[in-house]
Amino acid sequence: MKRLPDGCIDLAFADPPYNIGYQYDVYNDNREYHEYLAWSRDWMGEVHRVLKPAGTFWLAIGDEYAAELKLIAQRELGFTCRNWVVWYYTFGVNCVRKLNRSHAHLLYFVKDPEQFTFNADDPAVRVPSARQLVYGDARANPKGRLPDDTWILRPHDVPHGFSEREDTWYFPRVAGTFKERAGFHGCQMPEQLLGRIIRLCSNPGEVVLDPFAGSGTTLAVAKKLGRNWIGYELSEEYARGARERVNAAKEGQPLRGAANPLTSVLPTPTHEISQKIERRLRARRQRSQKAALRQRELRFE
Amino acid sequence: MKRLPDGCIDLAFADPPYNIGYQYDVYNDNREYHEYLAWSRDWMGEVHRVLKPAGTFWLAIGDEYAAELKLIAQRELGFTCRNWVVWYYTFGVNCVRKLNRSHAHLLYFVKDPEQFTFNADDPAVRVPSARQLVYGDARANPKGRLPDDTWILRPHDVPHGFSEREDTWYFPRVAGTFKERAGFHGCQMPEQLLGRIIRLCSNPGEVVLDPFAGSGTTLAVAKKLGRNWIGYELSEEYARGARERVNAAKEGQPLRGAANPLTSVLPTPTHEISQKIERRLRARRQRSQKAALRQRELRFE
Repeated sequence: MKRLPDGCIDLAFADPPYNIGYQYDVYNDNREYHEYLAWSRDWMGEVHRVLKPAGTFWLAIGDEYAAELKLIAQRELGFTCRNWVVWYYTFGVNCVRKLNRSHAHLLYFVKDPEQFTFNADDPAVRVPSARQLVYGDARANPKGRLPDDTWILRPHDVPHGFSEREDTWYFPRVAGTFKERAGFHGCQMPEQLLGRIIRLCSNPGEVVLDPFAGSGTTLAVAKKLGRNWIGYELSEEYARGARERVNAAKEGQPLRGAANPLTSVLPTPTHEISQKIERRLRARRQRSQKAALRQRELRFE
Repeated sequence: MKRLPDGCIDLAFADPPYNIGYQYDVYNDNREYHEYLAWSRDWMGEVHRVLKPAGTFWLAIGDEYAAELKLIAQRELGFTCRNWVVWYYTFGVNCVRKLNRSHAHLLYFVKDPEQFTFNADDPAVRVPSARQLVYGDARANPKGRLPDDTWILRPHDVPHGFSEREDTWYFPRVAGTFKERAGFHGCQMPEQLLGRIIRLCSNPGEVVLDPFAGSGTTLAVAKKLGRNWIGYELSEEYARGARERVNAAKEGQPLRGAANPLTSVLPTPTHEISQKIERRLRARRQRSQKAALRQRELRFE
């Protein structure tokens, strides 16, 4: 990135290592606290430098360092945070002594709070409103509305899927050519997620940067959407895989995964499930009441 | 709070003003950045002081100051963050130039990372697992599992409800005796949310503190669940309302709202909605294709 000139990038999307001890092949993901922060300051400073004055920076990060990296970006580098998006996935790692982890943070920064690209009217970005969806209300804006700042990913939204019988999903294989790369963030970023970000914050022909290209999702989506792209990747193996993936992507090609997050929710029959739960909970309650009665009887014998 | 002795509280839950210019009757919610941080450091320091060594502190906070307050609690006061819970509600304020706000942060801190109350086995805290729910899998843990760290609140989960015809929900009236107090955090905290926190992080007979009692939800729920409680409230009017509410609450009384977040999701017929969306999207696509064709014809005439 040091070789890029100042102010040449329109949009940067970064999903850096979260410093949670994940086993990468060439990178140590278990640095000392302040060393990780100093390193983050360095690469985010470079992102700030190479962005155009009206440029945009999206940062994906876990709970451990979300607060720290947000404040470094704001206070030390001068970014303005426009939205704090929470990416909620329903297949977190199952914990016994903590609440199960089920989200990552997507921090949306701009260099200049007055001037930036925000394609609020792109129909591919807008989502149907409740008025349109549920009620077909004539007063609804026919263009739909902007998405919320909480984005949901469910098991069946993941391109290559995984067993729906599992609560817990550790190391999905994402595609034959790449190493498994999921830590707790679960999977490589889905194309639809990058699609939303790239459509919202850049225009065709502009330049998208990914400093941690990984499996190449950002670059492949940028290419499909007619953007130019630059990516960096430490790992030879990832870089090879990403290159193949980007080469295979064609401008205008549809993105993988369901475009409409509401449609993709379809497979879960909420109503039936709720009835099932109710029946099971009732049965369980009855059983434990009976057991309690039996115990009480024993005690008083 | 200054009059409380050191180390007398088991659990503190605080939902302070978010410093976003909300109109309270006696409090200025529009302080200068560093003034708000200094004030937050003060009251959180007091919380730290009055907590027992094995005490727990939950902080509800908006996007604007979540990072700042998390780092003050960790770095300056010595709290350890065990979970970063995101509270997702599906009725955010509708924005035109930003993504719609749809969540708040619930930061879960302990004073001692080795010693704290965490009632992971309380059946009222556990939720059914996907294995139990969907598949009735015999290998599933019959006790269910711990909840995720993203908690969902939907319009029909709000005790006094509001029109489901609205995407946007500004100032719900919460109860006749209180002033409307919702800013973007939308509503007074639901009893089920406090119920989960109080059950998980305290035991019957222990002491729960709320430094910003507001409408008294924390205190009323603490009383219903057999805990002792202490609350502070600047506003005479809120304090009067909260007192009435706590007096009316009885130990052992059920909490308001649906206990099972999955059951409460029931009213939305996902499958039908998805089909409706699909039909509407298809129709819209066809209309715009026709319009495009017509335009093209006009252009070439």
